Amino acid sequence: MTTIAIIGAGLIGRSWALVFARAGLPVQVWDANPTVLDRLADDIGAMIRDAGGDAGIAALVTPCATLAKALDGADWVQENGPEDAAIKRALFADLDRLAAPGTILASSSSALMPSVWSEGLAGAARCLVAHPVNPPHLVPIVELCPSAQTAPEVMDRAEALFRQVGQVPARLTREIDGFVLNRLQAVLLAESLSLVERGVIDVQGLDDTIRHGLGRRWAFMGPLETILLNAPGGVPDYVRRYGPMLARLTDDAARGEAFTEAAGQVVADAFPNTEIRARQDWRDRELAALDRHLRSRSERKD
Amino acid sequence: MTTIAIIGAGLIGRSWALVFARAGLPVQVWDANPTVLDRLADDIGAMIRDAGGDAGIAALVTPCATLAKALDGADWVQENGPEDAAIKRALFADLDRLAAPGTILASSSSALMPSVWSEGLAGAARCLVAHPVNPPHLVPIVELCPSAQTAPEVMDRAEALFRQVGQVPARLTREIDGFVLNRLQAVLLAESLSLVERGVIDVQGLDDTIRHGLGRRWAFMGPLETILLNAPGGVPDYVRRYGPMLARLTDDAARGEAFTEAAGQVVADAFPNTEIRARQDWRDRELAALDRHLRSRSERKD
Repeated sequence: MTTIAIIGAGLIGRSWALVFARAGLPVQVWDANPTVLDRLADDIGAMIRDAGGDAGIAALVTPCATLAKALDGADWVQENGPEDAAIKRALFADLDRLAAPGTILASSSSALMPSVWSEGLAGAARCLVAHPVNPPHLVPIVELCPSAQTAPEVMDRAEALFRQVGQVPARLTREIDGFVLNRLQAVLLAESLSLVERGVIDVQGLDDTIRHGLGRRWAFMGPLETILLNAPGGVPDYVRRYGPMLARLTDDAARGEAFTEAAGQVVADAFPNTEIRARQDWRDRELAALDRHLRSRSERKD
Repeated sequence: MTTIAIIGAGLIGRSWALVFARAGLPVQVWDANPTVLDRLADDIGAMIRDAGGDAGIAALVTPCATLAKALDGADWVQENGPEDAAIKRALFADLDRLAAPGTILASSSSALMPSVWSEGLAGAARCLVAHPVNPPHLVPIVELCPSAQTAPEVMDRAEALFRQVGQVPARLTREIDGFVLNRLQAVLLAESLSLVERGVIDVQGLDDTIRHGLGRRWAFMGPLETILLNAPGGVPDYVRRYGPMLARLTDDAARGEAFTEAAGQVVADAFPNTEIRARQDWRDRELAALDRHLRSRSERKD
C-alpha cells in the first residue's frame, strides 16, 4: 500500500488528496497554516460531494500537525507550496532531510524546473516535478519532468503510481522551461490575445473558434493524431503540402509582447457580469461531466 | 425559405449539404465530376445513417447537372473547389455572372483570403469566406471572413444563416492570412512538432498533454475564458503575474522551421499500425458523441 504525503493543502493540494484517496491510498496532509488543516475534513467532504464521490473516501485523508508526521511512512510526497524558488529550496531541503530514503519527492510546480529547487540536495535523484492541471481530480494529465539528476527508476515509479490512481502521466525526457503543457498554452494564448487586441475578432468569437472548432478534436485526440488523420498520404506528405502555409502563419504569429495588460483588459471587458466563483463551479461541473463522457467512450472502444 | 447551392461535392461539400438539409433547407448540388453527382444520393444517405439522422433529410438534396441549375433560385452558394487561386478566381467569375443579384457567394477555402478570388468581380460585395472545420456536420464552428469589399449586411446574413442551421459562426472584422483557426493551430503544431522532434516528449505524451489536459477545458470554454477563471484578481492582474513567464515561453517557442518532413516522420512512426480510414470513422463517431454531450449540457444550463 502506497502512503501519500500532501504538503500544502490549498485548492491543488486538496484536489490531489482526493485523487489518491479515491484510489484507496492513505493520504497524510500537512499545511503551514493550521486553519487550513482545521477545515480540511469539511473542504474535502465538499469536494467529494461536488464530484459525486463516495463520502467514505474522506476517512483515508488525515490532517497532520507537523511536516514530520505527514512524512511518517510516506512513499510519495506531493508538494504544493508557493511558486518561489527560495521557499521551494528550503522546503525541499526539509523534505529531503525528514523523509525516509525510499520516499519520492514530487513538486506540483508549474513554473520552477526541478533543478532549480533540487540541485545540491543529497536526494536530488528522488526529486521530480509532477505538474497537474487544476484541479487534478477532474483533469487527468500529470506532466512528469526530471532534472538531470532524477533517477530513471524514480520516473518509472512515478508513471506507475499515476496510472494506478487513474491519472494520465506524460513523461518528459529532460527538463525544459514551462514543461510541455504551458509551452503549448503560451503560444496559443499569445496569438489569441494579439488577435482580440488588434480587433481581428472579438473575445467570444476567438473562444468559439477553439470551443466549437479545434477543441472538439483536441478533447479526445491530440493535435498530432489530428494531423495524422488529415494526411491520407502520410504525415511527411502532409508537412510537404501544408507545412509552407503553417510555417508562414507561425512566423507571422504574435510573440511575447502580446501579453499586455491592455490585452488582458479586452478579455476582462468581454465578461462584464461574470461571477468568477460561480463560473468556476460551472467549469468544474463541466469538467466532471466531460470526464465521465470521455471515460464512458474509451471503455466502449478505442 | 433559403435555398442553398453546394458547388463541389467532395467530403466537405456533402457534409455542408447535410448541415443545410437537416435544418430543413432545400439544397442544390453541382460538381464538375458527374460520377460524384451520380453517387451523391448514396453518399449522403450513408452520411445521414452514420450521424444517426432522419433518412428523409436526403429528399431535400438535389443533384444538378449544370452550374446554372444549381444556382437557379439559390439564396446562398457554398463553394468547395480546389485550393488554387486561378481555379477559384475563374469559378467565382462564373458564379458571380450566373447567380441572381441577391445571392451570397461563400467559399469554404481554408487557404485563400476572399480578396484573392473576389477582387475585381462586379459582385465582390457579396463574397466572403465561410470556413468550416471538417466535417462541418459534426463540428459547428464556421469562420466568416470578409474582404475589404464585402458588405456588412452580407456578413449579417451569413451569421444569421449559420445560427439558423445550428452552426456557430465566428465573425472576423477583416481578412487575415489563415483566418483565426489555422493561425491558432499553426503555432500549437509548430511547438508540438519541435518538442517531439527534439525528443523532449514522445508523440503519445504530447497528444495526452492536450487530450487529457488543455483540451478538456477548450472543448467547452475557449482559451480566454480559461484564463478569466484562473484570474481571481482580474485578467489584467493575471497578465501582470503570469505574462512574463508566458512571454518567455512564447519567445522561446518554435517557429516555421519546425514544419520539417523529419518531424512529420516522427509523428508517422508513432502510429505504425493505424488504419487511417477506420480511425477517421472512429474520429467522426467521437465528434458526433461529443457534440451530443456538449449540446445536452448547454441545453441544461450555461
